[in-house]
Amino acid sequence: MSSRRFYCPDIPPVGSMVQLNAMESAHALKVLRLKAQDPLTLLDGNGTLAEAVLIVSDERQRQERHALCRVDSIRRIPRPTPAIHLLVAPPRGKNMDTVLKTATELGVETITPILCQFAVSKPDVDGKATWEQTLIAACKQSGNPWLPTIQPPCPFHDALGATPKRGFFGAVPQSWSPSSETSSPFGDEPLALWIGPEGGFSQAEEQLLMAQHVTPISIGPWILRVETAVPALLGAIHSLAKRSNAL
Amino acid sequence: MSSRRFYCPDIPPVGSMVQLNAMESAHALKVLRLKAQDPLTLLDGNGTLAEAVLIVSDERQRQERHALCRVDSIRRIPRPTPAIHLLVAPPRGKNMDTVLKTATELGVETITPILCQFAVSKPDVDGKATWEQTLIAACKQSGNPWLPTIQPPCPFHDALGATPKRGFFGAVPQSWSPSSETSSPFGDEPLALWIGPEGGFSQAEEQLLMAQHVTPISIGPWILRVETAVPALLGAIHSLAKRSNAL
Repeated sequence: MSSRRFYCPDIPPVGSMVQLNAMESAHALKVLRLKAQDPLTLLDGNGTLAEAVLIVSDERQRQERHALCRVDSIRRIPRPTPAIHLLVAPPRGKNMDTVLKTATELGVETITPILCQFAVSKPDVDGKATWEQTLIAACKQSGNPWLPTIQPPCPFHDALGATPKRGFFGAVPQSWSPSSETSSPFGDEPLALWIGPEGGFSQAEEQLLMAQHVTPISIGPWILRVETAVPALLGAIHSLAKRSNAL
Repeated sequence: MSSRRFYCPDIPPVGSMVQLNAMESAHALKVLRLKAQDPLTLLDGNGTLAEAVLIVSDERQRQERHALCRVDSIRRIPRPTPAIHLLVAPPRGKNMDTVLKTATELGVETITPILCQFAVSKPDVDGKATWEQTLIAACKQSGNPWLPTIQPPCPFHDALGATPKRGFFGAVPQSWSPSSETSSPFGDEPLALWIGPEGGFSQAEEQLLMAQHVTPISIGPWILRVETAVPALLGAIHSLAKRSNAL
């Protein structure tokens, strides 16, 4: 895989030509100043990785920012299992970008911003386009060809009805007591990970989650920011689900 | 525990008075504008949490930014086991702050910035004072009374000699192959977690780590930024070490 990765939602068959969109073309020609025959990797956000080369890159083409590529090989990458659905009370501003990036690197399938009782930040539906750009950038950066789907912001109760029942929620640690053990049987069935706002889920919300057999989990006894809870709990779940690669 | 937490390296016995330092006093009196009898929590960075009240806060004292507290109760919090020693190739600028914050929230004992072959950022010894302020802020934010020790930046080879032998290093995923299982026996002995720079450890560095029985581990098949690898692998280690609290 080339370290120069580009988003190309419609990758044609091997031997065919494809033109990158305006934003990706600008990235290739203006930012990286790639030249003819330079190798690059395309990812379609739907599990396909293609090795390609930049075909022509004369001055006129560079000016017009049309990057044309020839596809030389294609790989289908299996969708990671179990699918992890992240439901997260969005933290403020830039911190939501951090959440989106880490969730992409760690391979979640969907991300649903949830509106909780103790929410600090009311997510804007207009933010969705920006969030999608962040997810695409994170796919390119991490090499993950599976673009997570970002759902529209959704009230907690609606999300609860629409989500796979199995999973975990990030709990504010209740005590200094020694940890007990989870012995969840993991299979290939989808999992939900619920991360509440900085103030945590309300007691009512926690009870609804537990009534659906969503298991409370915390990493250590201290308070985690949302931006820390997301990667730490995804790391724990990968490890519990044996998705971590001990090489 | 009050949600207003202050760093106070010398907490006196119950019933005694203590004056917060200039920075903490400014935080209490100027930023939060606390008043007489307001409750606050003190943490000494060495495992002690104290509940206290602000004693006087007249206008003169507020101007001079001297916050005087009376200690009402004290709790000793056991040092988390196994101790986790983080050795990390520091990412650029603000991203190192993110690493320090998450490592504090997730309870590591020491942090050593390491100089690796593929380093992107040469850490500055002068940065240490700023890093310590970040760690103190993260202790206050997360309620962790154990302030991590930050070591001076250290070449990879020197760090290797000075570190507990057991542990893991973050590996760039080598293949799409299904994950295998780690069956590390975890006890109370200290653990090291090694996180390399964005380009990963060099082959020579990886071989030295493996020669010391430090186990390669990765979370999923994609490339993680250092800021993601630190919390995700700490989450996985907590979970492997049964340090995660399933309540």
